[in-house]
Amino acid sequence: MGDLLEQPHHTGSPAHVATPAGRAVVAPRLGDRVVVRVEVPHAAAVDTVHVRTSPDTEPAYAPARRLLRGAAVDVWEAEVEVVNPATRYRFLLDGGGGQRWLTQVGMAANEVTDSSDFALVATPPPPSWVADSVLYQVFPDRFARSAASVDWPDWAEPAGWDEPVAAAPPSSMRQLYGGDLRGVTEHLDHLEDLGVTGIYLNPLFPATENHRYCATDFTTVDPLLGGDAALAELSAALHDRGMQVVGDLTLNHSGDGHSWYRAALRDPAGVEAGFYLWRDHPGGVAQAWADVPTLPKFDHRSAELRRRLYDGFDSVAASWLGEPFSLDGWRVDAANVAGRSGAIDLNAQIQRQLLATMHDARGGDAYLLAEHCHDATGDLQGEGWHGTMDYLGFTRAAWSWLGDPAGAGDSLGMPVPLARRGGAAVARGLELVRGQVPWRSVVHSVSLLGSHDTARWATVAGDPGRRDVGLAWLLTFPGVPSIFYGDEIALPGESSVPARLPMPWHRRESWDHATLAWTRRLVRLRRRSAALRHGGLRWVHQADDQLVYLREHPDERMLVQLTRASVDPLRLDASLLQLAPGVGAAAELGHPPLTVTAAEVRLPGADGPVARVWRLPPAPYVAPASLDA
Amino acid sequence: MGDLLEQPHHTGSPAHVATPAGRAVVAPRLGDRVVVRVEVPHAAAVDTVHVRTSPDTEPAYAPARRLLRGAAVDVWEAEVEVVNPATRYRFLLDGGGGQRWLTQVGMAANEVTDSSDFALVATPPPPSWVADSVLYQVFPDRFARSAASVDWPDWAEPAGWDEPVAAAPPSSMRQLYGGDLRGVTEHLDHLEDLGVTGIYLNPLFPATENHRYCATDFTTVDPLLGGDAALAELSAALHDRGMQVVGDLTLNHSGDGHSWYRAALRDPAGVEAGFYLWRDHPGGVAQAWADVPTLPKFDHRSAELRRRLYDGFDSVAASWLGEPFSLDGWRVDAANVAGRSGAIDLNAQIQRQLLATMHDARGGDAYLLAEHCHDATGDLQGEGWHGTMDYLGFTRAAWSWLGDPAGAGDSLGMPVPLARRGGAAVARGLELVRGQVPWRSVVHSVSLLGSHDTARWATVAGDPGRRDVGLAWLLTFPGVPSIFYGDEIALPGESSVPARLPMPWHRRESWDHATLAWTRRLVRLRRRSAALRHGGLRWVHQADDQLVYLREHPDERMLVQLTRASVDPLRLDASLLQLAPGVGAAAELGHPPLTVTAAEVRLPGADGPVARVWRLPPAPYVAPASLDA
Repeated sequence: MGDLLEQPHHTGSPAHVATPAGRAVVAPRLGDRVVVRVEVPHAAAVDTVHVRTSPDTEPAYAPARRLLRGAAVDVWEAEVEVVNPATRYRFLLDGGGGQRWLTQVGMAANEVTDSSDFALVATPPPPSWVADSVLYQVFPDRFARSAASVDWPDWAEPAGWDEPVAAAPPSSMRQLYGGDLRGVTEHLDHLEDLGVTGIYLNPLFPATENHRYCATDFTTVDPLLGGDAALAELSAALHDRGMQVVGDLTLNHSGDGHSWYRAALRDPAGVEAGFYLWRDHPGGVAQAWADVPTLPKFDHRSAELRRRLYDGFDSVAASWLGEPFSLDGWRVDAANVAGRSGAIDLNAQIQRQLLATMHDARGGDAYLLAEHCHDATGDLQGEGWHGTMDYLGFTRAAWSWLGDPAGAGDSLGMPVPLARRGGAAVARGLELVRGQVPWRSVVHSVSLLGSHDTARWATVAGDPGRRDVGLAWLLTFPGVPSIFYGDEIALPGESSVPARLPMPWHRRESWDHATLAWTRRLVRLRRRSAALRHGGLRWVHQADDQLVYLREHPDERMLVQLTRASVDPLRLDASLLQLAPGVGAAAELGHPPLTVTAAEVRLPGADGPVARVWRLPPAPYVAPASLDA
Repeated sequence: MGDLLEQPHHTGSPAHVATPAGRAVVAPRLGDRVVVRVEVPHAAAVDTVHVRTSPDTEPAYAPARRLLRGAAVDVWEAEVEVVNPATRYRFLLDGGGGQRWLTQVGMAANEVTDSSDFALVATPPPPSWVADSVLYQVFPDRFARSAASVDWPDWAEPAGWDEPVAAAPPSSMRQLYGGDLRGVTEHLDHLEDLGVTGIYLNPLFPATENHRYCATDFTTVDPLLGGDAALAELSAALHDRGMQVVGDLTLNHSGDGHSWYRAALRDPAGVEAGFYLWRDHPGGVAQAWADVPTLPKFDHRSAELRRRLYDGFDSVAASWLGEPFSLDGWRVDAANVAGRSGAIDLNAQIQRQLLATMHDARGGDAYLLAEHCHDATGDLQGEGWHGTMDYLGFTRAAWSWLGDPAGAGDSLGMPVPLARRGGAAVARGLELVRGQVPWRSVVHSVSLLGSHDTARWATVAGDPGRRDVGLAWLLTFPGVPSIFYGDEIALPGESSVPARLPMPWHRRESWDHATLAWTRRLVRLRRRSAALRHGGLRWVHQADDQLVYLREHPDERMLVQLTRASVDPLRLDASLLQLAPGVGAAAELGHPPLTVTAAEVRLPGADGPVARVWRLPPAPYVAPASLDA
């Protein structure tokens, strides 16, 4: 199937966007001029190319010029001025093939709205380390327990490290294994060996349930976790190893045991009463997250609440970013619903104020990641969250394509089992969802195969082959990969609660060492490949059982082949891939190298699920301009 | 081609949305419950239907129940609670046909973003008369001249009524024919005979060019037009006939002769200097609309500017809505760029403040229409403009499908000739664009075949047959039709300036009386058909040369057949159309009635461009609930 490669192509990545001097565009400013390049295969029958911008929402066209004539592909380039904080552009192609738009959702011979236009974002950029990261998610109660004695709280049901996880409430929320932060610090060798660059920690605040999303206090680390000192130690140890640590902040609600909520219940006229949205007031209880009464919902119309939580140097959000804790950012829990209730929608203001506070506290070196289990595209336009946990733009796709067809269980919130889909439908969904988001927000969002809120990937995938393919997808796709602790050894879990099982440090014979080696290999591959971290995405082949894509960067290209079942060998046109005859393509994962002849590239077939990655030379058009990563 | 009718279907119209008591949902309020119905053909192999809402952006699912089992189509219904000002919903269909979403852009077997979800809008509704309107656009200098003597201003190049239009600047802007408002008043019989329900008047303010978008004063009607008294008379005469009048207000800029701008240039420290966005200040000139130096751009950060223009009872926007002028609304010129400049974006605040002022002035009976020549979908989500002049969601489609293939000329702002496209591509574009907008904003937007800013429809269409089909499309499609003065007699014009030619009242022999009769017939058809004004849109057939659609309403359905060239007869499955055997289908435009047998409906073929409309009984599922329009 050569038709995907016969489509004109552009991405917001360094493969196609550069400064006029040929350097990567990292943090464009208003007034800057940027060069954009579009690859136009001859098969598309294009005679003229214009770039359309829409400064202040008014369309403006500029002709592109033909930069390079290739054997099968021409490259055109044009300049775009950065006029607005999100400067949108698309291409107009005209000629014998008809009049078409090229936007982030592909080519269209019909009108399409501007929401899928490419976009250059000129707001202050996310920290430079984020896009290079591979994160590791730690659920503190279950990751590791130090030798420190535990003073079990009244609410807890203490569990030994090898006891099974209690699946049913209330025990599911009260069962406490006693994992702590010194336990994390003691196991950093494991993380460094795996190759991850930082950790995302689920909440650390004192709480009344084991997940700690029901904070009773935002000003101290839960003594059960070792208190403030243990966090300072962990943070220092991570930073010593060059690793980052991201905390977890709930701005939508507190626990009902929080001192603010207790004060609000006591004194309906007090300032804290203004911190919550009430069902009945006075005398009633607050609105609650998902109607869970222990999670009363904040009212962000209160300036004092904003001041305490995220407005200014003294706020909760700022204080943990400073010494001695030095968190490198926040993952904001339930970020989509924070500040939203009926006619009230202060969500955008929360994003901007929090971002400003974090910027003031850390000079632009703190990462702001939103939990949004659904469609976050409206909140990723460049003025708020740096990125989202990309359940819609990655997790659902991976589960749909690679999930055990016979598996039921976790449907990711759907009232029916999550559909199992073919590769083309999955890829089209990814294209439509990610196509609504500026490239900057794509590469600063987090891709994940699972988390504390889902079943575990090993259980979802079922088959070890599909499981390995999923890990390869995660680590070769645009977006910061995040590995839920234990997924690297294929821990099981059919839903979120059983998935939060203790890491079996003392039973290494139970680990899936093949998965550990595979994960380590993939993490290291990503860390040494600019294309896998920063390169544009180009789909090469989409079929029910096979997905093939390029990650394209000025330094190199990576060709990724994923299958979920048996497939035949695949012939790709070498000139459409802009490969010179006889060029080599090294294999990155122990499989054979590619045979590239003058005419074609032959991808091998497969007898079942496989993941293969080859390194190709960069496309010729980027060489003259000598782009820097 | 039966496949469109085999797709599950829902619209936000009264055909599919009702109160639990079965009445039309006109102005839902937060907390209301609304019944939504979806038609599910058996061919789609659906076993379960859920409605998904996203209160506060968090998805929630509710099962639908099967309300009716038909011969070929079942109808399911579910309830939706109006939780947010724009309450979005979609359907999840599962079964043997796979798992699919149904949103405003159709069925998808892949993930799609929430922006195409259906939406119930709970903000104060547009005036009730708007969706029933057929508007007529009057360009004051060219429509009609009363016997009043004209005191030609210095800038003007006076022209006799029969003189040709000067095409080249500066004469194109200075040529003045002396049309005035008493001239309009004198010709209301023509409008009433045509059947239109109201007029939209291009600007009336004193200015220094013939289009009057360069206002020198917003507080008085140009004396050349007859001054304030002439507007009061015209408005009263229109209201006496039950017609409305919408004015034209520029919030993006004034003329450079405006007293505010003169004051700003004189005194860089004065309050008026804050009204404009400056290139250099002091000592320079203001930014300008489209870099036209006579149109200095407002700076809406100035509270005093907002107060004068649209914030409060004393503002320009409010004053003209009151006695004795009683304008029924505003068309806002260049509405997309107003308040937007680089990093500044106050557009949403302008919309909300203007809407509040208009609401205060007229208790919800004033219409707020935005000029936005491009993608207005982001501004039509229910919190601002009631609607847009729908160039992207109608004009471009009509021009692409019905425009003279050999015609060049006006490309609607494109740097290449506007593409001529087949019916399916055009319909898909309409679906994608209108699918981003709540139904309420669709039916309160204005559809047009041309305006003072474009070539005239007669010239664009070329062939009289295609011209007539375009008029039929305009008057049978969702959205308020607007007829540019003279299009009803097929005046020509190859671009905007020559299109502004004087209405030849005294040369009636030059009129195209067939077009006049056709237009009158179509206007009257629309005015007596609830389906054409309020009914949902269902595509029945899309081919290169033929488009067929249903407008569905609880009272009736209208089946519309449009062709642009010869087509063969078309057989439609009667059971998919939910037509009982032997039912009659009256013809509305003088063509033969339809033959409906037990098995099929036979649409006649055509030898060239035709437009036919048949009235069908309502779908059976709406009868039991006895919905009211």
